[in-house]
Amino acid sequence: MTTERLVIVGGDAAGMSAASQARRTKGRDELEIVAFERGHYSSYSACGIPYWVAGDVEGPDRLIARSPAEHRSRDIDLRMRTEVTELDLAGGRVRSLDLESGAESWTGFDKLVIATGARPVRPALPGIDAPGVHGVQTLDDGRALLDTLSRATGRRAVVIGAGYIGVEMAEALLRHGFEVTVVDRSEQPMSTLDPDMGRLVHEAMTRMGITTVTGAAVTGVLTGDDGRVRAVATQDAEYPADVVVLGIGVEPETALARAAGLPLGDHGGLLTDLSMRVRGRDAVWAGGDCVEVLDLVSGRERHIALGTHANKHGQVIGSNAAGGYATFPGVVGTAVSKVCDLEIARTGLREKDARAAGLRYVTATVESTSRAGYFPGAAPMTVKMLAEFRTGRLLGVQIVGREGAAKRVDVAAVALTASMTVEAMTALDLGYAPPFSPVWDPVLVAARKAVAAVRRAGA
Amino acid sequence: MTTERLVIVGGDAAGMSAASQARRTKGRDELEIVAFERGHYSSYSACGIPYWVAGDVEGPDRLIARSPAEHRSRDIDLRMRTEVTELDLAGGRVRSLDLESGAESWTGFDKLVIATGARPVRPALPGIDAPGVHGVQTLDDGRALLDTLSRATGRRAVVIGAGYIGVEMAEALLRHGFEVTVVDRSEQPMSTLDPDMGRLVHEAMTRMGITTVTGAAVTGVLTGDDGRVRAVATQDAEYPADVVVLGIGVEPETALARAAGLPLGDHGGLLTDLSMRVRGRDAVWAGGDCVEVLDLVSGRERHIALGTHANKHGQVIGSNAAGGYATFPGVVGTAVSKVCDLEIARTGLREKDARAAGLRYVTATVESTSRAGYFPGAAPMTVKMLAEFRTGRLLGVQIVGREGAAKRVDVAAVALTASMTVEAMTALDLGYAPPFSPVWDPVLVAARKAVAAVRRAGA
Repeated sequence: MTTERLVIVGGDAAGMSAASQARRTKGRDELEIVAFERGHYSSYSACGIPYWVAGDVEGPDRLIARSPAEHRSRDIDLRMRTEVTELDLAGGRVRSLDLESGAESWTGFDKLVIATGARPVRPALPGIDAPGVHGVQTLDDGRALLDTLSRATGRRAVVIGAGYIGVEMAEALLRHGFEVTVVDRSEQPMSTLDPDMGRLVHEAMTRMGITTVTGAAVTGVLTGDDGRVRAVATQDAEYPADVVVLGIGVEPETALARAAGLPLGDHGGLLTDLSMRVRGRDAVWAGGDCVEVLDLVSGRERHIALGTHANKHGQVIGSNAAGGYATFPGVVGTAVSKVCDLEIARTGLREKDARAAGLRYVTATVESTSRAGYFPGAAPMTVKMLAEFRTGRLLGVQIVGREGAAKRVDVAAVALTASMTVEAMTALDLGYAPPFSPVWDPVLVAARKAVAAVRRAGA
Repeated sequence: MTTERLVIVGGDAAGMSAASQARRTKGRDELEIVAFERGHYSSYSACGIPYWVAGDVEGPDRLIARSPAEHRSRDIDLRMRTEVTELDLAGGRVRSLDLESGAESWTGFDKLVIATGARPVRPALPGIDAPGVHGVQTLDDGRALLDTLSRATGRRAVVIGAGYIGVEMAEALLRHGFEVTVVDRSEQPMSTLDPDMGRLVHEAMTRMGITTVTGAAVTGVLTGDDGRVRAVATQDAEYPADVVVLGIGVEPETALARAAGLPLGDHGGLLTDLSMRVRGRDAVWAGGDCVEVLDLVSGRERHIALGTHANKHGQVIGSNAAGGYATFPGVVGTAVSKVCDLEIARTGLREKDARAAGLRYVTATVESTSRAGYFPGAAPMTVKMLAEFRTGRLLGVQIVGREGAAKRVDVAAVALTASMTVEAMTALDLGYAPPFSPVWDPVLVAARKAVAAVRRAGA
């Protein structure tokens, strides 16, 4: 029996899920697995960093799903602090650099997994690299930010970007006693929602004491005599800052793949087929934050950096790389988040996405509650639903509310996957009891209103 | 223009939803609506009674969704305390009895809705009507029970039946400071779950201080010299009781329909078509707790008394009775409940249901958590999944856990409605963020294990 070698570039969620899944299928006599990770940590939850910074979670150890030693105990040769610097696909080998010793070497592979992740968008602005400006992508970033927070003499924080990471970091900084200003170029925070739903987030953030500045492009980070950040500048104003957090989002880390001539999509991510194999390649797979995924609602490729997708990709890749069979059909674009006690969720298309996909649609927005109205703790929520003109097919759902709001979006995620109409949704047999839902679940109330809107539009 | 008359028998969820929906479609010049209700209340939440008794909810007014006066203000002629005593279908009229005055009268109809609800099962046991023995079906029942609880000198309560109502009442009585014993003839409490999942409920109830006696058929209620209840007897033992609550469930109230020769199913409920029209009848509809519904998973009729279905039926009936078009496709058998902080949910088929439907299946049971394992408040939950042999089609899900467990069953309810396979479920794009879910949602963890079980069984 010959032993094949599987080489994995990137030791986080997608890469190490692939390694684990492949190892579950094939023993070390059949498959050698070598994984390279340039950082200090493997298999950690980047999504957990805002909660570590907020003090909800002890870090960084609690955020590590599986340590390098655990991986090695499963016969996965995980090489930490070792950066892959070149993919030689024709030669079937990768070049790597030991970041500690500086030694370079080549490692041959029979099968290759690219799981290089994403890097935070760091706009080329004056002062962006000044001390006191922090990203929150890696555990090292989290540690550095906590260090800055503990030493800060002032108590003013500016978050650049009002997306998921931005609003989560706003909460974290608030919890540290900072006066928080969030600056975003969009019309409303959470531009992954339609502006009418983003407005609800904006209002809630204001009530929490977070200042949100919208429609404002940051022009630079201003520094003081000590070289440290002192303010964030936009075209119209300056926002004093003792600490600045970048929450602008991430972009696929595909420099290696690009250099190797692999196919990239419009968003800079690797393009794969349904088995997560890089398009046009036989024994090269890619997954996690460095790939684009098919949006099942619009039929277009998107880039979504999310641990849950990375894990699923890894699972699929590991099965296939070990000679099994699995596919990743695509996503519907579900995302949930919270800022303090406000829950925010979305799935499917926003209005602008529907227009961009050439779809004509109607919308319905309803107010409901998380429990029967008479039950203690019943919390208000707003549900917005998009349905296709004429067919009534569900296109998207956005929810903003309190406890019990966010995960209700899952019902819509499954309905989108199944291409349900909003009329079919009104009959869904969802769990009902007074502590858990009104007699008509809020998602069904929205579906009923959407049915009426479809009828009116078609009349 | 001639004015048609719609007569509705029963003024609770199904009947009054039908009335309201019909009124939304047609004004009083086109459609006269007369509704008869024999009780003191209309449109109330029977599901809320255990929470009223527990003290979570102020009652009974808070449990009334819409008062008779509100209905009347919408041109619905709701006649309270008026019992329909005969349906003369050939003659197009109903006979009613004014329970206050004793006056009888006939009312003609063009269209008829039967929404007579359900009545609690009250086994013909010695002593079952003794003072201190209470049902919890109506608001009057709730008031009478609260009265008994406030006067009780002893502090021992026995609940007969360990289904939804039984366990909810066990919590309510516990909250009143009673020593609670629940007696049920089944192998485990919550026989709407498989016994292995019911065992988890049993164990949790024991930890809460509730004594659960299983496999025990009640033979009678024993009374003292004062004629009041003093104990509940089974074949093997006597359980002292200062108050007894009947939580055995309900059966369709279809005496009128039976006398009128309308078709009833195996469970005693009225049989309807998909438009909720009584089978074989043109202008007679039926809905709510008095009908049987199609179980979409087994293809068989079931009787499920649940306010959420009653409301949906009413909506469909009201549309159709007013000349519109709507259908109720059936149910998948979703139910959620809680006892203290334990959440209990189910949808689809149990093992015995699958066997009865002639289905061969595999099961998978997993332990997971409501949030990322490292996030504060992450609560354990057990998810059991049934999938069809070979096809891998999802057949059912049961969940027992703490906060965040019950409503996760909704994902499975939608997947069942869409006839998804467990393999398709593993790719579902469910909301993920550390405060809301582990990176693999517990339902997806179960789906992955079920996929493996299907493969093993098929090999």
